[in-house]
Amino acid sequence: MSLITLTTDFGIKDPFVAMMKGVIYSINNDVSIIDISHGIENHDVSDGSFIISHTFNYFPKDTIHVVVVDPEVGSNRRPIIARASDHYFIGPDNGVLSLVIAGDQSASVYEITAERYFLRSAGNTFHGRDIFAPVAGWLSKGGELNNFGNIVTDHVCLKVHKPYKDDGILKGEIIYIDKFGNLFTNISRSDIEEYRQNRQDSSMMIGFRGREIAGIKSYYSESKRLEFAGIINSFGLLEIYSYTGNAAGLSNANKGDAVSLYFKGF
Amino acid sequence: MSLITLTTDFGIKDPFVAMMKGVIYSINNDVSIIDISHGIENHDVSDGSFIISHTFNYFPKDTIHVVVVDPEVGSNRRPIIARASDHYFIGPDNGVLSLVIAGDQSASVYEITAERYFLRSAGNTFHGRDIFAPVAGWLSKGGELNNFGNIVTDHVCLKVHKPYKDDGILKGEIIYIDKFGNLFTNISRSDIEEYRQNRQDSSMMIGFRGREIAGIKSYYSESKRLEFAGIINSFGLLEIYSYTGNAAGLSNANKGDAVSLYFKGF
Amino acid sequence: MSLITLTTDFGIKDPFVAMMKGVIYSINNDVSIIDISHGIENHDVSDGSFIISHTFNYFPKDTIHVVVVDPEVGSNRRPIIARASDHYFIGPDNGVLSLVIAGDQSASVYEITAERYFLRSAGNTFHGRDIFAPVAGWLSKGGELNNFGNIVTDHVCLKVHKPYKDDGILKGEIIYIDKFGNLFTNISRSDIEEYRQNRQDSSMMIGFRGREIAGIKSYYSESKRLEFAGIINSFGLLEIYSYTGNAAGLSNANKGDAVSLYFKGF
Repeated sequence: MSLITLTTDFGIKDPFVAMMKGVIYSINNDVSIIDISHGIENHDVSDGSFIISHTFNYFPKDTIHVVVVDPEVGSNRRPIIARASDHYFIGPDNGVLSLVIAGDQSASVYEITAERYFLRSAGNTFHGRDIFAPVAGWLSKGGELNNFGNIVTDHVCLKVHKPYKDDGILKGEIIYIDKFGNLFTNISRSDIEEYRQNRQDSSMMIGFRGREIAGIKSYYSESKRLEFAGIINSFGLLEIYSYTGNAAGLSNANKGDAVSLYFKGF
Repeated sequence: MSLITLTTDFGIKDPFVAMMKGVIYSINNDVSIIDISHGIENHDVSDGSFIISHTFNYFPKDTIHVVVVDPEVGSNRRPIIARASDHYFIGPDNGVLSLVIAGDQSASVYEITAERYFLRSAGNTFHGRDIFAPVAGWLSKGGELNNFGNIVTDHVCLKVHKPYKDDGILKGEIIYIDKFGNLFTNISRSDIEEYRQNRQDSSMMIGFRGREIAGIKSYYSESKRLEFAGIINSFGLLEIYSYTGNAAGLSNANKGDAVSLYFKGF
Repeated sequence: MSLITLTTDFGIKDPFVAMMKGVIYSINNDVSIIDISHGIENHDVSDGSFIISHTFNYFPKDTIHVVVVDPEVGSNRRPIIARASDHYFIGPDNGVLSLVIAGDQSASVYEITAERYFLRSAGNTFHGRDIFAPVAGWLSKGGELNNFGNIVTDHVCLKVHKPYKDDGILKGEIIYIDKFGNLFTNISRSDIEEYRQNRQDSSMMIGFRGREIAGIKSYYSESKRLEFAGIINSFGLLEIYSYTGNAAGLSNANKGDAVSLYFKGF
């Protein structure tokens, strides 16, 4: 039994995702298809890239991940398959797969050109159904990557904002907001460890939208209700939360907002 | 492994869909159940009918499609099974299956009367769980259609609005709005081909809510950001979109709004 | 093929649920995973408890139900497995499983302490992925319950509001509101039968937010459009609805609002 995951900005009201599943089952009945998310922000390649890069690794090796956030569908942007970190990734060459590709030095990327695998379609607006789903279906039946096209080395890479040290302050930003309103930053546990060196966590401060938050909690309910606090979350990232509240709503935070880390009395 | 799809107006917050799946798995463990949509507008039989008719065909032959948009549940409206275009369809006889039945001249329709297949229930409000799901489960185990009841020929048919030519103008309407705010019309590619005959696509105009849109694009990003444009979409229908924008929101469009096609200088 | 269900307050936009599925598939490829709901109100243990208690029984015996509504994740609240009514239940010991446990006098509850089954994690905020999912995976492969920890008898029990008779009036409350705006009360069919004894249903009145509703319908469309009416719903509970309308929206009803049952002329 092969596993195929789907990550898109298609939502679940429309039948687009179901059409992709139907196409896959029509090719290979012996698969399990798992939705990662269909709530990627419309056309937000960076959001899709972030989600798949933090999620794929919880699936078994050789899982096939189809990622479709594809505002240039039907234009000359290329469809690609990547082999990276022992998983397969299929999607448009617009950067949505670039984080997973960047995560494996020996990743290989193929342009999908073998039209014999494509669905003959009424339109040119839905390559998720007409190209990516059937390629996933055929790949799950044991296709070799070079059946689908040739290796390319000039795939599109998204620019990623890394935290940086400026005058003793570690400067990062909000990169994701979850359903609970928790604010994910781009500052990882190892960034923090490198930054704090031998100093105490307890004297570390988080600056954010004019607020100052003291220290980093080890579990959510360690802080008081509605109090803002920091925690290392399940992605391994510094997260700002408000216990039982919605940190994003309470602070009017948005993706891209600055977050800084510094030591008290600094 | 049998495939069963579900299309309802139940949403996914409540456990109604899960109950249907539990009932099916209790009868036949060897099935895959795929959600087509649970976001059909409440009680909107026409919406459900449109979605299933455009989606079923992407699934393998003999897939069982359960479609429950059922405002008269528990009244004397009949439950039916249809065999059409080599697929099975199960739902209430209120028109929600009428488009798929109309799509196959040799379709047959059975009233479901064999109560031995029904779930004994606490209430009379949820035939999705108590009638349609168990019938799907038993059908997936190889049941014959006439086990469930007798053929009927007077099933309910929805009236469908077709585009029509009036004084040289092709007049249609908006029939569906997707998650991106794209506006699906009832004008198909073949309607357009028949209408334009030998004239150039490029001189074709789309009239819509006081706007005039020139020509039909071949892919979304061929038009400028936020510009209104037309395209033949993945359903094979003329669609009005606004690239990277929400055409429905930007134009306050609703289902039923008139769309016309005509030639410049006409 | 084992069945595992998931009930959480995680929503479906974020990849949290998919991560849980990936973890399960990494342990046992031969499972079907069914979503019951991921729309439990944030941190609302009572809501989760209600949903799972009314839903599990539609699944086959020995289904494994993972229920994660877990505001105290990472604190010293215990993870537990319960065996009740021939099903398995996995979740935090905060009451979310207490209704299903209370429903079976011979239920047994185990604290999960066997860390060898846990995922080694970057954080302490997501036991759904790091503890409950892998335990479900290993249990589905045939693990014995006492492999995971020892029996406990002091699990947390939620207080449940039961309807009660006061001066001849049966007093209950709204406990759940579904997607259609239907108002579920805590008054069951058997509560009503016991209350009315030999009197006619037709003289029974429902009092609710200053309104008086006469009698109990046998199917939704028995009442007029937008009229408020009562019905015994698919959970076996008295429900207040407005045919083709949204009763919650039209009456500004909320969970906890009082509902009374009495006889006309009383």
